[in-house]
Amino acid sequence: MLPVDLPDTVRDALLAPLVDHHCHGVRRDDLGRAQFELLIGEGAGLAPPGTTHFDTPFGAAVRRWCAPLLDLEPHAPPAVYLARRAELGAGEVNRRLLAGAGVVAFLVDGAQEDVQGDRSGEFPEAAELLGAAEMGRHGGAAADELVRIERIERDVAETAQLAVDYLDDLGEELAVRAARAVGLKTVIGSRYGLDLDPVRPSRGAVIAAANRRLADPKERLTDPVLLHYLLWSAVDVARERGLPVQFHTGFGGPPGRGAAEPFRADPARLTAFAGALQPLGVPMILLHCYPFHRQAAYLAGAFPHVYVDVGLALPHTAAASARVVDELLELAPFHKQLFSSGCRGLAETGYLGALYHRRALAAALGSRVAAGEWSASDAARVAHMIGSGNARRVYRL
Amino acid sequence: MLPVDLPDTVRDALLAPLVDHHCHGVRRDDLGRAQFELLIGEGAGLAPPGTTHFDTPFGAAVRRWCAPLLDLEPHAPPAVYLARRAELGAGEVNRRLLAGAGVVAFLVDGAQEDVQGDRSGEFPEAAELLGAAEMGRHGGAAADELVRIERIERDVAETAQLAVDYLDDLGEELAVRAARAVGLKTVIGSRYGLDLDPVRPSRGAVIAAANRRLADPKERLTDPVLLHYLLWSAVDVARERGLPVQFHTGFGGPPGRGAAEPFRADPARLTAFAGALQPLGVPMILLHCYPFHRQAAYLAGAFPHVYVDVGLALPHTAAASARVVDELLELAPFHKQLFSSGCRGLAETGYLGALYHRRALAAALGSRVAAGEWSASDAARVAHMIGSGNARRVYRL
Amino acid sequence: MLPVDLPDTVRDALLAPLVDHHCHGVRRDDLGRAQFELLIGEGAGLAPPGTTHFDTPFGAAVRRWCAPLLDLEPHAPPAVYLARRAELGAGEVNRRLLAGAGVVAFLVDGAQEDVQGDRSGEFPEAAELLGAAEMGRHGGAAADELVRIERIERDVAETAQLAVDYLDDLGEELAVRAARAVGLKTVIGSRYGLDLDPVRPSRGAVIAAANRRLADPKERLTDPVLLHYLLWSAVDVARERGLPVQFHTGFGGPPGRGAAEPFRADPARLTAFAGALQPLGVPMILLHCYPFHRQAAYLAGAFPHVYVDVGLALPHTAAASARVVDELLELAPFHKQLFSSGCRGLAETGYLGALYHRRALAAALGSRVAAGEWSASDAARVAHMIGSGNARRVYRL
Repeated sequence: MLPVDLPDTVRDALLAPLVDHHCHGVRRDDLGRAQFELLIGEGAGLAPPGTTHFDTPFGAAVRRWCAPLLDLEPHAPPAVYLARRAELGAGEVNRRLLAGAGVVAFLVDGAQEDVQGDRSGEFPEAAELLGAAEMGRHGGAAADELVRIERIERDVAETAQLAVDYLDDLGEELAVRAARAVGLKTVIGSRYGLDLDPVRPSRGAVIAAANRRLADPKERLTDPVLLHYLLWSAVDVARERGLPVQFHTGFGGPPGRGAAEPFRADPARLTAFAGALQPLGVPMILLHCYPFHRQAAYLAGAFPHVYVDVGLALPHTAAASARVVDELLELAPFHKQLFSSGCRGLAETGYLGALYHRRALAAALGSRVAAGEWSASDAARVAHMIGSGNARRVYRL
Repeated sequence: MLPVDLPDTVRDALLAPLVDHHCHGVRRDDLGRAQFELLIGEGAGLAPPGTTHFDTPFGAAVRRWCAPLLDLEPHAPPAVYLARRAELGAGEVNRRLLAGAGVVAFLVDGAQEDVQGDRSGEFPEAAELLGAAEMGRHGGAAADELVRIERIERDVAETAQLAVDYLDDLGEELAVRAARAVGLKTVIGSRYGLDLDPVRPSRGAVIAAANRRLADPKERLTDPVLLHYLLWSAVDVARERGLPVQFHTGFGGPPGRGAAEPFRADPARLTAFAGALQPLGVPMILLHCYPFHRQAAYLAGAFPHVYVDVGLALPHTAAASARVVDELLELAPFHKQLFSSGCRGLAETGYLGALYHRRALAAALGSRVAAGEWSASDAARVAHMIGSGNARRVYRL
Repeated sequence: MLPVDLPDTVRDALLAPLVDHHCHGVRRDDLGRAQFELLIGEGAGLAPPGTTHFDTPFGAAVRRWCAPLLDLEPHAPPAVYLARRAELGAGEVNRRLLAGAGVVAFLVDGAQEDVQGDRSGEFPEAAELLGAAEMGRHGGAAADELVRIERIERDVAETAQLAVDYLDDLGEELAVRAARAVGLKTVIGSRYGLDLDPVRPSRGAVIAAANRRLADPKERLTDPVLLHYLLWSAVDVARERGLPVQFHTGFGGPPGRGAAEPFRADPARLTAFAGALQPLGVPMILLHCYPFHRQAAYLAGAFPHVYVDVGLALPHTAAASARVVDELLELAPFHKQLFSSGCRGLAETGYLGALYHRRALAAALGSRVAAGEWSASDAARVAHMIGSGNARRVYRL
């Protein structure tokens, strides 16, 4: 599984169980070709006629690495892979792939995508996804929950009658949900952008925005005042309970449909907001980050409370993921890097995320040890920190 | 020519004829040292005293790879290279280099640069450049035309008297020119930027802008309303005729002289506009993209109608081009990548573009096959798609 | 010291003495663990409890490469390293590290950081740092001065009474200081950003801003009008005396505390301003640039008066620095690249900057020669240009 010769200690550290600190549930039902392609496409819709999403780095990786776990030869054609997947059934496939990831704990964002209009078919309903406990059971691992704050807001907006109730309910619901979670998560980067105001919105502006919101509570929340208010409320809860807040940054998620521009999800834009949070001591965890992972690495070095991963970038850059990990290692402190698969819908992503994390880190550490830059014991220690140690410390697992 | 050991099928696929889907004509006349340096410089003017544009990756590549085609040793000094070039004559040199590129079809943007003021000397007049048919004849290849829409606007502005005629003529001329072309091309990225309004400008605003335009028709068009109108008119024509629209993005072209900031040509800024074009099904092709090619690769994966190349970046990054190609392969679907040389003025660029495309892709595919990540037959298939298959499909060649 | 087999001429060129064209003084006093960690952190403050700034690429590099110069084994633990450092004393350590860098001339920015509020403890006072002449003496090298223009402004603001005096004094002081310096330097990138107005501010606006400034002369200058005025005044002086102006760009320095967003320090934003300076012929030198070094390389190729280095990025990316250097070589002309360590406070940075410059360039040149892309004599020539030749020409040393 590891691409290079490594000292035993480094190899052992890389093969040790991982904490997957950010993932979603995978589909519990059997998937047809179109459904599978939609999930590979990560919001891109179906591939144009005459083409297939299997002709991507991710698709090639599924055929190379997941096929053998389904008793097929590496590089099995897509049709063969999907036929075998159907034959085994989703339950068995999920068990093989999630257990194959070698994960000791999943931290699961159980909120489904909040997609409007004609694309809702592309995103699974919550009921179709394994919940946190099921993810753990399938993967032979512990499981904990992450609270997606924009999802809580949607529930509150649909039930509250008055602005003041809406705001009270929001605070209460955040506190209740956070009490049984290990972290909070925001997708404000894809709703608004990451150039967040470092000053809290005024009470008056929030009340006014809440009144507007309640006039149309089923719409996806895009009001900047309420998005900021929600985030600050989450920060307060996080501070009280000693929880970190995850920020979706960089690529991932469907663009161009009421979503913010991808360049507004550049984590470098978080700088002023990160400066405002620093005195509160609430850990900020930057997810995915690609292709802005160098900027994220810089922030992780510049702020004591900022952490970073390249999550979904690894299974999606696949055969090229070693460079992405190596670029993160250019500047990010070793005690600030985490592993996540970012998997959603497909257990393949969970398996490939773990696989490429180990392979890419093996290449990075192996080359440093071979060049005499690092000692083997330091390399092993860093592998352990990134794979699980840092997550245990930050999430208090 | 290929830098690594490859399975025969992969080697054959890489050496197969290419479709160069975006280039300009090359100079038909013999070039002195100053002229040659100006063309190497790509709009940068002459090198400072005591220095030479040969001291660039491109210059080193000319000496290494083009010299042998002129019967010289690799790494021939600049003066020797230019003397031999003059001795052979431009016609013979162009034939050797263009034929050496191994191209089966050139798609040619025949519009010369529309440069104002004291820099006009740096850019060849159209009469000095080979036309599309001549490019094909010199290179032993077919040739088709691309329509630069900003060039059409200039012609129309110079002849129309009334705003309403100007707008009618624009639509008519676009339709006439598109009827004998395989694609349209816009340089709005360097005139205005790529953060385009996803909504068409109003008729009133367009008329007003057209009136302003006709008061000063010889100026280079920089009015945002008319640039947007022109682009939307081109989109309509493209949709009707099933043609793609090329967007100049990223580096290339002279900065700082009435041109947009290079960071405004970041293709990520096209996201909202790409979302607006998606329902129309008009293919958008992002040219060059460097150093924002990772953002472009993301868009090519996220939108079914977006395609990408790294065109001019390959001959200009030269000995370092393998990493650029490999970075594009991190995320861009294989059915969305195209080859182009972006050559303009110098046949050397056409030759080096094809050479480094093959060498860089050979390194990328070779390492994937050697690591067991891809099968040899998949690698060969991808080489064929990127080299010519995708272009044949998109341009309906 | 060099990681690859190289032809003798290339090896000799790489090992030849360097001109470190941008550094600061190093601490003259002995450093405790906390002080050393603060200086490693480059403005990030102390590492969170349970972690250490030694767990960074820079920290690993100190243990690997600096430990042997202090008679320790490579990879010595941090406590052992610091104990030995204390035992030898700061003077001896500085001499060993600075002399070990193999530098023939240091160009020194002697202005200390101008930090406000509770972080002042993190940055050394000027009195604690070696001056330019001392740097030279410790390193067995020549030394020259760079003038930090924002520092001059602070001195003038504290003494001037009237706006008109303030402006006169500014011009005079710039001229006096420039007369004994080899270059000017601005940190406007971290005070305001690099999207500078290419037009000089009006006299009226400057007078008004100067009056506001004198009402609060002890504050750090952040007024855009005065920052621009100061820069243009520096440009005038630079033009008169034939001096270059250095621009701090990219990473480095403390973020989020009244500082500009890091993405505003992207050198690509300098394009319009660079265009305005081009006719004046004043060399602009872009420092550090990371992670925007590809954009900087593009500007260095597009403008005859723009130069570039990756300064502080090399000791901080350390084991991964070869890729950074190789990316700069993708597009930057060889006659436009310079070497600097950017060292400040720690002599370790000066040593590691030179070491990784040599190692990274060795890897880049070695691979080009081995691939037949460049001749050995060209590689040696380029190593000499980047290491010292270009600096001698630009700074007229």
